[in-house]
Order: sequence, then structure tokens, then C-alpha cells
Amino acid sequence: MYRAENYPSKVLQNAVEAISSLPGIGSRSALRLALHLLKQDKEDLLRLSSSIAALGSEIHYCKECKMVSDSDLCQICSSPKRDRNLICVVESVRDVMSIEATNSYNGLYHVLGGIISPINGVSPSDLNIRELLARLKPGMEIILALSGDVEGETTSFYIYRQIEAYGVKVSTLARGLGFGDDLEYADSLTLGRSIEARRPFKP
Amino acid sequence: MYRAENYPSKVLQNAVEAISSLPGIGSRSALRLALHLLKQDKEDLLRLSSSIAALGSEIHYCKECKMVSDSDLCQICSSPKRDRNLICVVESVRDVMSIEATNSYNGLYHVLGGIISPINGVSPSDLNIRELLARLKPGMEIILALSGDVEGETTSFYIYRQIEAYGVKVSTLARGLGFGDDLEYADSLTLGRSIEARRPFKP
Repeated sequence: MYRAENYPSKVLQNAVEAISSLPGIGSRSALRLALHLLKQDKEDLLRLSSSIAALGSEIHYCKECKMVSDSDLCQICSSPKRDRNLICVVESVRDVMSIEATNSYNGLYHVLGGIISPINGVSPSDLNIRELLARLKPGMEIILALSGDVEGETTSFYIYRQIEAYGVKVSTLARGLGFGDDLEYADSLTLGRSIEARRPFKP
Repeated sequence: MYRAENYPSKVLQNAVEAISSLPGIGSRSALRLALHLLKQDKEDLLRLSSSIAALGSEIHYCKECKMVSDSDLCQICSSPKRDRNLICVVESVRDVMSIEATNSYNGLYHVLGGIISPINGVSPSDLNIRELLARLKPGMEIILALSGDVEGETTSFYIYRQIEAYGVKVSTLARGLGFGDDLEYADSLTLGRSIEARRPFKP
């Protein structure tokens, strides 16, 4: 929309270009955000800019589970309250946060840092799979909590083949109709799978 | 969505909170952006953070027209090619950029920095009106290019009353049907005003 020679200021242009490199933010939104930031206090701008720079310089990854952390061992891995015989394998940091927000899981995690995807050039060696194998001990339970699409299923299967010899119990998330869902609005794939995977009724 | 105690890292939490203070970005989008930034190179993060900090520390406002600039006198005010007897009065930096993008204006600008709005607590003294009066010389043309809503009309009228004694010609933007618009789809207010403001046909 605005050609370079139309920018009244190189400083403004640099900010717009950097902001529009963020996913989901086009050049028009980036300009709107930059003009908003122009009106803010210097302290607010510094708080924003230094918190972004800190993502590059101050963030750590837990040496055990590869979760983002402020130190070399994350809060979860260092907590004495956690069940150390239970590891939930997830794709990303966000998945850990989502599961933690449920308050219904008390084990450890392992963040793969991605999912096997030939189309995106992600192979098993790009993921934290070797680090997972190093954590396994006989008698542990490993929960494969990856997404239900083809790539997630492929990754689950690949990991299952890698870990089955370690004497661990492997489980996966329950899938079916959402709790409280009406049958009327369920897609037929989910409904069909929910019938196949029916469970004993516990009154 | 995520309570403070669920954040795996204070560094991540600080970034999400700072990003979600931007207009139109909620906490979910802010988390998505922060997790995206986590995966970027340090240099990209520094480019983004320093360009944001520069908006506070390196930006100037032109001493003549109050436009953002990299120096004390903006490119437009310092250009010898511009008609110095023509000043277009606009609300904001973005308006200058929009008009410049048309490539059809060759005069100077004056950025008010807002619009009179009692409901938002903006009074004439908050705007760069005194600075506009200081630039006026007899024989100049002043174009009031403010928005067509009540606040814009009020501000235009206020400025008109302030400047009419200076011996300047005051004009405003043409309003009517958009060029190429069908009558069928025009709202009746615009169509009615376009008939009232009809102009001689020039074949």
C-alpha cells in the first residue's frame, strides 16, 4: 500500500516492516500498530521491546523435557509433587500450557518441538526423540498426546516403534464426542469412531 | 486463559503481557506471537525489538507541520518542489501518508494530532492549531481534509473560524459518489448531497 518513498520516516518504516514480518499481521495492521506505539510512553515501548529481546537472550529450555523455562530445569521437572513415572509427549510448548491449564495431569512432559512432516521438511531427527529415549525406564507410562491428523498419527506410530522395546506402557488420549456434545451435531467420522471405541458404562 | 502460575517462564509471560497490550491483540494471539518469536533467530528478535524502541527514542516531529520525521524538518517541508502556499490540514500521520500515496497533491501539510472530541476529552488546545495559525500568510490556500463525521465537521468549523481573519482561502475535500460508483448502490444521504453539490459538466 505504502511504497518505501512514501514513508515519512525511516524509523517508522523499519518498525512497520519488522512488525509485518509477524504471522497474521499484514502491512496495514503493522502500520496501525506502529502509529499506536508512536503515541505511547517511552517506558511502555522499552518494556515491549526488551521483553521481545529477552525471548532471544534470556529464555532457557529444560534439559529434561525441552520445555521453555527460566532455568536449566523447568518448574515441572523440578517439582517433587510430580509423578516421575508418567511422561506426556507433546508437539509444542503451547500443548504443555493447555494440559497444565486443565489441572488434571500430574506427570512430566516431553516436548518434541514439532511433528514429523515430510512436506515441511521435518524428519524424526529434527525432533527431540533421542532425548525422550534417554529418559525412559522400564515400568514408566508414556502418553502420546499428539494431534489426530495424519502427521500426528505418523509421529505417534514412529515414536511407538522406537519406545516399545523399553518396557514402558504406551497410551494415547481418549478421542470421541466432546463431553456434553449432542449426537445431532457430531461429524459422522467422530461419531463412528466413538461407537467403535465404546467403553463400559459406569453409573 | 492461562493464569500466571501456568506460565512456564516469566520471560515468556512478560512478552505475552507486553504484546497483548497492543490494540486488537488478545492474550491468545499474544501467546501465539510470543511462541512464534521464540523460534526466531536472535538477530530477527533484535531487529524487531530495536525498531520498536527506536519509535520512542529516534523519532522526530517536523517543527513546521508536526509530521513524523527523521529530522527536525520533514522531507515534505524541506522539499523545494512543494507549493508553499498550499497547506492541507489533516488529523493524523496516516492521513498524510494516504494523501501522499495518491501522488496528486503538491502542497504542504499540517497534522493536528487529533480531532476535537468532548466525549474523548480532546479540546482545541490539545491540537496543533496554534502552530497552524503561526504558519498562515495572506494569499495561502488552506484545505481542511478532516473526516466527514460530526467531530470532523466540528473541528473544520472551529478551525475555519480561527483562520478566516488571516486572509487565506479555505477549501475542503470534494464529497459525493465515489468515482465509478453505481447510483444503485449509493446510500441516499450521499446521493442527495451529490445532487445538491452538482458541478458543471465538462465534456
